[in-house]
Amino acid sequence: MAPAPAVGTEGQDVPNRRVILKRHVTGFPSEDDMEVVAGGARLAVPPGSAAVVLKNLYLSCDPYMRGRMSMQNRRSYVPVFVPGEILVGHGVSRVVASGHPDFEVGDHVWGMTGWEEYTLIPNPESLFKTNHPEMPLSYYTGVLGMPGLTAYAGLYDVAKPKKGDYVFVSAASGAVGQIVGQLAKLAGCYVVGSAGSDEKVCETPGTKFGFDEAFNYKKQQDLNAALQRYFPEGIDIYFENVGGTMLDAVLLNMRMHGRIAVCGMISQYNLEQPEGIQNLSSLIIKCVRMEGFLVSDYFGQYHKFEEEMVGYLKDGKIAYVEDVAEGLEKAPAALIGLFTGRNVGKQLVTVARE
Amino acid sequence: MAPAPAVGTEGQDVPNRRVILKRHVTGFPSEDDMEVVAGGARLAVPPGSAAVVLKNLYLSCDPYMRGRMSMQNRRSYVPVFVPGEILVGHGVSRVVASGHPDFEVGDHVWGMTGWEEYTLIPNPESLFKTNHPEMPLSYYTGVLGMPGLTAYAGLYDVAKPKKGDYVFVSAASGAVGQIVGQLAKLAGCYVVGSAGSDEKVCETPGTKFGFDEAFNYKKQQDLNAALQRYFPEGIDIYFENVGGTMLDAVLLNMRMHGRIAVCGMISQYNLEQPEGIQNLSSLIIKCVRMEGFLVSDYFGQYHKFEEEMVGYLKDGKIAYVEDVAEGLEKAPAALIGLFTGRNVGKQLVTVARE
Repeated sequence: MAPAPAVGTEGQDVPNRRVILKRHVTGFPSEDDMEVVAGGARLAVPPGSAAVVLKNLYLSCDPYMRGRMSMQNRRSYVPVFVPGEILVGHGVSRVVASGHPDFEVGDHVWGMTGWEEYTLIPNPESLFKTNHPEMPLSYYTGVLGMPGLTAYAGLYDVAKPKKGDYVFVSAASGAVGQIVGQLAKLAGCYVVGSAGSDEKVCETPGTKFGFDEAFNYKKQQDLNAALQRYFPEGIDIYFENVGGTMLDAVLLNMRMHGRIAVCGMISQYNLEQPEGIQNLSSLIIKCVRMEGFLVSDYFGQYHKFEEEMVGYLKDGKIAYVEDVAEGLEKAPAALIGLFTGRNVGKQLVTVARE
Repeated sequence: MAPAPAVGTEGQDVPNRRVILKRHVTGFPSEDDMEVVAGGARLAVPPGSAAVVLKNLYLSCDPYMRGRMSMQNRRSYVPVFVPGEILVGHGVSRVVASGHPDFEVGDHVWGMTGWEEYTLIPNPESLFKTNHPEMPLSYYTGVLGMPGLTAYAGLYDVAKPKKGDYVFVSAASGAVGQIVGQLAKLAGCYVVGSAGSDEKVCETPGTKFGFDEAFNYKKQQDLNAALQRYFPEGIDIYFENVGGTMLDAVLLNMRMHGRIAVCGMISQYNLEQPEGIQNLSSLIIKCVRMEGFLVSDYFGQYHKFEEEMVGYLKDGKIAYVEDVAEGLEKAPAALIGLFTGRNVGKQLVTVARE
């Protein structure tokens, strides 16, 4: 994994496959809403600019990207994708050309990039360098990148766990959920995770990640009853990744002064009308704080997080499961798979290995 | 309003009218669900006990009492009323017999008491003395009592207003809403209130209370559009008293890092199924904190609150509107009126004047 030669590519014109959005999506997205097309790239920055050119190595598939595919999501915190244009998301890349004093050819970085082989980034200040070459580079799409920081900030800054708290994590084998649950265990909490298949429950939350319990929510006829069984004392912290009927059941099972950190609601992203949540009066009865957050508010603590998480990984205190799709042409299916729950662990796409 | 003579009643047997719940209520309550019945009381405490006997002067009609009338509300923070037994709520009373060293005959107190003329309180430690005889005693059912403390704690401790914040208060002429809005004005906020009639809007939030704007929500065909007009920049703080469709519209209009202090959801209390709230994804998009609270967590700051609020009232910085029903026999109708929106200002019942 040594950096590729820093010379020999600058200025070249190269082929550049890319994933474009064909049309805005209503309801459930399909692979056919995207297309992998041919294109070209010049491995040089415009003269006098502070841009960089990235060779993309790993692309991150994240649920929030669904919102960018819909016209009706114009209220969102991120702009809507334009049909015919390239998808954009988080990725890990190598700098192959640079006009910016902070970035050198050969640097590995993570941040927003295009779903393509090479991307020109006009303002690279938003990129983070990867400071631990001893870690797998792909980890910077997950446990050491945006989803890891999401888990860390959402748990510590929003949910504020105390030793002995009863913590419930939905989507508990996903990119964020697996880290939240393990951090909560490290904080001395009792942790139960839910996921959507026996494989995820057996292989991951229940054993590998060291949660106290885990269950397949699809096998529960009555989510309220299931939560009552797993949390006879009630739930202090719910880390919300799914929304809908799970949230309604959780609300009935919260403890006094409980906290719900609202990270995502993936069950709702493909519905034209969200499901109605009926049990919000529990917020009053149980003095519950329900708080939404965006990881962008926490990028300032990224380096502190990175050092802490690298330590946990090296010490074996945090396990991490990835689901890797090989090749850019697999990217549309990998993204769609998030919404069918196909992935086990963090879903990413390998564009190039080096 | 001098205290009645402290001697001359102790030990007497007296008639004692009382309001009982006839049956558990489903759906909308009616006067017929309650009954005013004859009874008796002895104006003496059991020998050796630390009880007090109260002569009830003013009873408070509060929306949360609806929950105690339903069997299905067994999850609530207060026990369900028992059919055939007396209603219980907050009131202002005079001590007419005492076995407790902290309470003397003639003391005026506020706290939980029976909906009747005289009540034996076995554990009077939960009662607060009224420290300002220069204020109308009835104010201790409202602006100087539980609803006032609810407004104060909910605004300052939960919503945490900053100067210049855009604040929206629903049920803005009610016992809590009128105080919240005025405290928010004192904190330098821009305040808009909503209420359910032109009378409430014109007489109270818009003018008397000094809010910046107020509107009759029943005249709005589209609550979302109305809120967009009143809050073109969005809402920083929503003080939630009503729930349902208003909450859903507010969620669409929150600003980044907004706060929703959830005090009550009166529009939902008589529904067998609560309305579903669809726009909770706004919590994520706008990093909104939505937090329920109970005033019981804040009784420790009652005396600080009482002094501050008495100061505001004396300085004319807080106006206060009461809706007074005269006589215990009017109590059932006064309580029901909360749910039809009949009352303008804090609803209370005068049992005895002195």
